[in-house]
Amino acid sequence: MALPVSPLALPLPALPPIAGVRLGAAAAGIRYAGRDDVVMAELAPGTTVAGVFTRNRCPGAPVDWCRTMLAGGVARGLVVNAGNANVFTGRAGREAVERTAAAAAALLDCPAAQIFLASTGVIGERLPYPRLTASLPGLHAVLRADGWEAAARGIMTTDTFPKAATRTARIGGTEVRITGIAKGSGMIAPDMATMLCFVFTDAAIPAPLMQAALLSGVEATFNCTTVDSDTSTSDTVLLFATGQARHAAVTDAAALGDFTAQLHAVLGDLALAVVRDGEGAQHLIRIDVSGAVSAASARRVALAIANAPLVKTAIAGGDANWGRIVMAVGKAGEPADRDRLGIAIGGTWMARDGSVVPGYDEAPVVAHMREREIAIAVDLGLGDGRGTAWTCDLTHGYIDINGSYRS
Amino acid sequence: MALPVSPLALPLPALPPIAGVRLGAAAAGIRYAGRDDVVMAELAPGTTVAGVFTRNRCPGAPVDWCRTMLAGGVARGLVVNAGNANVFTGRAGREAVERTAAAAAALLDCPAAQIFLASTGVIGERLPYPRLTASLPGLHAVLRADGWEAAARGIMTTDTFPKAATRTARIGGTEVRITGIAKGSGMIAPDMATMLCFVFTDAAIPAPLMQAALLSGVEATFNCTTVDSDTSTSDTVLLFATGQARHAAVTDAAALGDFTAQLHAVLGDLALAVVRDGEGAQHLIRIDVSGAVSAASARRVALAIANAPLVKTAIAGGDANWGRIVMAVGKAGEPADRDRLGIAIGGTWMARDGSVVPGYDEAPVVAHMREREIAIAVDLGLGDGRGTAWTCDLTHGYIDINGSYRS
Repeated sequence: MALPVSPLALPLPALPPIAGVRLGAAAAGIRYAGRDDVVMAELAPGTTVAGVFTRNRCPGAPVDWCRTMLAGGVARGLVVNAGNANVFTGRAGREAVERTAAAAAALLDCPAAQIFLASTGVIGERLPYPRLTASLPGLHAVLRADGWEAAARGIMTTDTFPKAATRTARIGGTEVRITGIAKGSGMIAPDMATMLCFVFTDAAIPAPLMQAALLSGVEATFNCTTVDSDTSTSDTVLLFATGQARHAAVTDAAALGDFTAQLHAVLGDLALAVVRDGEGAQHLIRIDVSGAVSAASARRVALAIANAPLVKTAIAGGDANWGRIVMAVGKAGEPADRDRLGIAIGGTWMARDGSVVPGYDEAPVVAHMREREIAIAVDLGLGDGRGTAWTCDLTHGYIDINGSYRS
Repeated sequence: MALPVSPLALPLPALPPIAGVRLGAAAAGIRYAGRDDVVMAELAPGTTVAGVFTRNRCPGAPVDWCRTMLAGGVARGLVVNAGNANVFTGRAGREAVERTAAAAAALLDCPAAQIFLASTGVIGERLPYPRLTASLPGLHAVLRADGWEAAARGIMTTDTFPKAATRTARIGGTEVRITGIAKGSGMIAPDMATMLCFVFTDAAIPAPLMQAALLSGVEATFNCTTVDSDTSTSDTVLLFATGQARHAAVTDAAALGDFTAQLHAVLGDLALAVVRDGEGAQHLIRIDVSGAVSAASARRVALAIANAPLVKTAIAGGDANWGRIVMAVGKAGEPADRDRLGIAIGGTWMARDGSVVPGYDEAPVVAHMREREIAIAVDLGLGDGRGTAWTCDLTHGYIDINGSYRS
């Protein structure tokens, strides 16, 4: 299925090498023909790792594996396949994970517990892991420091463009780099709002400090986005720090400098890239809620709007239908007072204090609805809680992609 | 917008008169041209009333009105309009409700507090109530005991067929009749799963007993259905008992005979009719969950499956994609053990104990997916909680209807 590239696509940024990371992709023929579907990364000895995983109660075998191995805090390799999620595959799924980790560990000369794994694709079909493990020696032989684009493309499923983001941060006066790749692009909702995301840095950071920075970052980025409200069984965000940069030892969060802020920026870019490539997406929608009783309440209201099919179809149709936003605010179950509610689209307040603003100028709203990026603001008028969510519209493209046989 | 009639439509049943109920419809030109859009019912003096309303926090002015007037427990009239929901209209909305009730009360020679009101349609636009009140004298003059079909058609919005159900019940050896009409067909989710439903009976039942019977009935029917997960601001179920049947006085629930069961049957028929007319629906989907830790947990899992866009689009595409059902079970947030989970479609168990059933026969599953009514069964394997939900598939029709300008 060749999908047209999302009109919201962004070009891949320039991605410099990161000391201690070599990566690449190969075609193992697991499901797709004529494209790479296995990605491998080799990480320098001493690489620390942090991870955040789906809260779906039926996680895939690779998620179970990663959760267990995360306790060690050390990673030497990453193996990812696209096309088969290795979810709901019982004993066979566990066997596939163990064999894949063992094969990669033999190549990288490390314990299997230092191999991290992720799979994405169809649920409930056995992963033909012999094809995967057979591809690894050849792939390992060609890993490169500049393999970013190949890796970003190799993890794609229904994605229409590769997704990557990069930033530099300063730790104690030394510049470090943070680069991540991610894939979507359906079954996307908190928690978390992506299927797979891998971030690499040359910084040297103890695993517990990384875990805290990653958790807060995912909370502020991926968990504020949604495509279709469906939470994947495979959602995985992994952060690897190779420790190759020569900066002062990091022993507490204060010593991280602006690392956490830059990490969050990378995660934010990737989360938005996933929404931009939401299945069938024609519009990127930002929803800012203010005046809530708390920040958490504001975010829940924003996500209720972001997940409302009637809001998403209205925007697909170019309709500034703020009545459906009222509905979505009301169904969120959060404190809301209809008679204090205000709603703006594209900066024009169409409703205030529970009623339409008499004589508001429709022209800028109509013009805004023709843009690719739509801004919705809701003021609940109750407190000072603020929150933001991002989503895309719901279009015929989503039905095409997901209503075709076993996409 | 002339929509094709749902392939899941049912014919209107024969609807005998109910003593003490006269009803009809008229064209007030509130939004639609060339069709009735106002419905009125005159109820005999002494009619008792019960009601259940949306839990949306931004309810419409008619919902506020009905909630207040329900305290009186007495009804003489019902006025419903289609095309404008009178929601988020502030002071103007309250004024429209008061003027409409006053106009109907003058015609029926009763206090305004005995007039019940409902509106459905666009949110956030002022209801042009003078057109509505101007239509009432002519409409009142032609109310008939056999006006059921006109009323069922007059409350439709994006509905493609009129919805009604009828049963008889016996109270102390005397036969009474229960007849209801309803409309959908988008913005449909618990609680409650319809926009408008009106049920009439000639039984004589005190309002508190009716309220209890109605609440349990809505819980078991409408609140087990969903079309698009969006909860309307206008959901209203009203039950009117004219007291014209000559049966022994009802002083407690035991004296109701099979009235409650038959009322629930009427509500169940109407709830399913709404799902059958879900916007764009091509398939009616029944989801039975067993083995949950409780009945409430089972229903929440069933509704999570019913609301999952990826399950709904798979069924639209004729794909028995049980992997997406696994995902939906996992995202429900209810107790679930992946390794005990079983899933059947059309009676064929495709997965048991957390893994695909080796060599299960695909032929009956493929045949089942071509039928109009799809049956999904999920066994969580944890306890003896059971629950059922009904929904429809998510198709291009839903996008067409809701992505067109201001449907």
